[in-house]
Amino acid sequence: MTSSNPLWRMARRAARMNPSVIREILKVTEKPGIVSLAGGLPSPDTFPIEAMREATARVLQDAPREALQYAASEGYAPLREWVAEHLTAQGAQVDAAQVLITTGSQQGLDLVGKVLLDAGSSVAVEAPTYLGALQAFAPYEPDVITVPCDDDGPLPDGLHVARGARFLYALPNFQNPSGRCMSEPRRAALVSAAQALGLPLVEDNPYGELWYDAPPPPSLASRWREGTVYLGSFSKVLAPGLRLGYVVAPPVLAPKLLQAKQAADLHTPGFNQRVVHEVIRNGFLREHVPTIRARYKTHRDAMQAALVAHMPPGCRWNTPNGGMFFWVELPAGVDATALLPRAVEHGMAYVPGAPFFADHPKLNSLRLSFVTVAPDRIERGIAMLAAALKEIL
Amino acid sequence: MTSSNPLWRMARRAARMNPSVIREILKVTEKPGIVSLAGGLPSPDTFPIEAMREATARVLQDAPREALQYAASEGYAPLREWVAEHLTAQGAQVDAAQVLITTGSQQGLDLVGKVLLDAGSSVAVEAPTYLGALQAFAPYEPDVITVPCDDDGPLPDGLHVARGARFLYALPNFQNPSGRCMSEPRRAALVSAAQALGLPLVEDNPYGELWYDAPPPPSLASRWREGTVYLGSFSKVLAPGLRLGYVVAPPVLAPKLLQAKQAADLHTPGFNQRVVHEVIRNGFLREHVPTIRARYKTHRDAMQAALVAHMPPGCRWNTPNGGMFFWVELPAGVDATALLPRAVEHGMAYVPGAPFFADHPKLNSLRLSFVTVAPDRIERGIAMLAAALKEIL
Repeated sequence: MTSSNPLWRMARRAARMNPSVIREILKVTEKPGIVSLAGGLPSPDTFPIEAMREATARVLQDAPREALQYAASEGYAPLREWVAEHLTAQGAQVDAAQVLITTGSQQGLDLVGKVLLDAGSSVAVEAPTYLGALQAFAPYEPDVITVPCDDDGPLPDGLHVARGARFLYALPNFQNPSGRCMSEPRRAALVSAAQALGLPLVEDNPYGELWYDAPPPPSLASRWREGTVYLGSFSKVLAPGLRLGYVVAPPVLAPKLLQAKQAADLHTPGFNQRVVHEVIRNGFLREHVPTIRARYKTHRDAMQAALVAHMPPGCRWNTPNGGMFFWVELPAGVDATALLPRAVEHGMAYVPGAPFFADHPKLNSLRLSFVTVAPDRIERGIAMLAAALKEIL
Repeated sequence: MTSSNPLWRMARRAARMNPSVIREILKVTEKPGIVSLAGGLPSPDTFPIEAMREATARVLQDAPREALQYAASEGYAPLREWVAEHLTAQGAQVDAAQVLITTGSQQGLDLVGKVLLDAGSSVAVEAPTYLGALQAFAPYEPDVITVPCDDDGPLPDGLHVARGARFLYALPNFQNPSGRCMSEPRRAALVSAAQALGLPLVEDNPYGELWYDAPPPPSLASRWREGTVYLGSFSKVLAPGLRLGYVVAPPVLAPKLLQAKQAADLHTPGFNQRVVHEVIRNGFLREHVPTIRARYKTHRDAMQAALVAHMPPGCRWNTPNGGMFFWVELPAGVDATALLPRAVEHGMAYVPGAPFFADHPKLNSLRLSFVTVAPDRIERGIAMLAAALKEIL
């Protein structure tokens, strides 16, 4: 493209930017009537619509001029304080001055990349990892290093491959796509290994509140405050269409992230920040999040039962204790990307696992979302997947 | 900073990112009772609060699940269509497929920089130019070339200094900070010169609707469709706290801008897009914008009268036909930055002009905003400025 148009010369980084593979896959699978376990959306049944109605009315009644005016790049002060108190209550010792409100936590990933990554510098990621992070980092042209992982996350003994990287990007709680949650001992060992290497961490936590059996262990940030940037989001506990997330940065990084934020969009919509603060300020999430957990747990159980009932021998998955996804490994030699059209013919869709690897993709892996489809349809969808798989085995 | 912390190594570009000079100036001038003509905010008296109330209630009634869910990176289709129709009605021939909804037009500047600027590539700007654009481009480490300008904008005969630049960034309508509006002949000559050089244009138009005497001439984009990226915004005609802007890109650029957008924040809040579309879809702006024009025109006239009445000989300004700013040149040898503390002592504040120049700042220039301060206070503020100036002359 760069060379084909003599007028517009694109930046070198544009070659690293590509359409989302998953987005392209979702287009193929968006047929009417299909049981799609491919999406990554939360269930709209969990959106607190009545609370949003009340909060928007309240904000437009009490502070319309302030809510609709330009605002501070750092974010709305009471919301920053709420975030600091919320995380401190979870054991992380956060000061409101460290909190930067972002336009979704995707923007946090972009700002982190902008401030920390040079062309040719290294960034370390898990295998598999969140595709949106790979997309956010790519324009800054880093070399991506994959650290060895098992079902409990990155292997501390293998972390030395990331020596010299600007940071390790990790998603410890119910990871997208693998659903895995790092154990307490693994977190402790990972932080020790990172400290020994002088390898900072970027911890992404969109799903931590969505636990179905027991809360996840304390964050990596709570174990290594000065060595961890922490990203949080209101997308999974309230609603993603508000695009509201936050970055908690060590004091040495906070000013540069703020300058990057200011250049990126001046500030996150103040109206949205005030509305969300109005919704949550009196403890709303204490009542609301358990209702999401109860709903998603039922779906999780339905998918687990369906996988047990239908999947042929040689398939492997671990039951997620939270989040939104099952990660399935098909029998060795089966290519999940090649299988997808056949699954769609049977009437269901999933996302192949390959795009979630920075390198050496596990071709036999796939991701299943369990939160948006009703339990009876989950059962039918898994039966269809199993039928498609059995045809080629 | 990069070298002082052994753990976090920052990207090279971080050295180009700095706190906004104006933001720092505004902190100094935020004293109670001061007549501040320093701000860059629209007047909150123009925010359509009642229309916002109705629209938020309607959106949360009619499509709450869609408004609160993840949405397309391109933006809400009906809003993109509205933008295309609106611009086409102004003579620009825009297709909705070219429109990308952004989180304020500041994000448009960031995306343009991300897709088009390499470290060491050149970007051309006006003298003076919008500071936010310099901040948006800086992280991509371009060399900034200033094209020679007069009171009518860039001089076509001087454009050759920008030969080889990735684009010329221009703000033709009531520019921030200079208030100037490019004439019809200048636009024609500028586009011809740019075409001859093969120099693409990035046209920023936040203020075009705010004309007080006659509408500005047609856009640069309408004259050179394939050679111009056009940025628009709802910040000045509705409210900036919604952070809603748009980019109209030639088809060759649109896919890369979209990929950059997706990596930056997935999408602009769908709730905000639907609310704004609900506000404007039935012609609301045709009634609303004239009320803003009438209000701001009164303020503009008050400031013009006050400048004529109070400023000592040797000062120069041109009366803006739209927008939000007067640009004043003090007598040669007077440094507007040095004068500011004295003006603040007298009880008023302005923004010195120097930060708006990429190089060779006009030290005797300053910017005055006329839209947020009541006419009688404008008169007092200008009298104070004149008094401070007379002390040092």
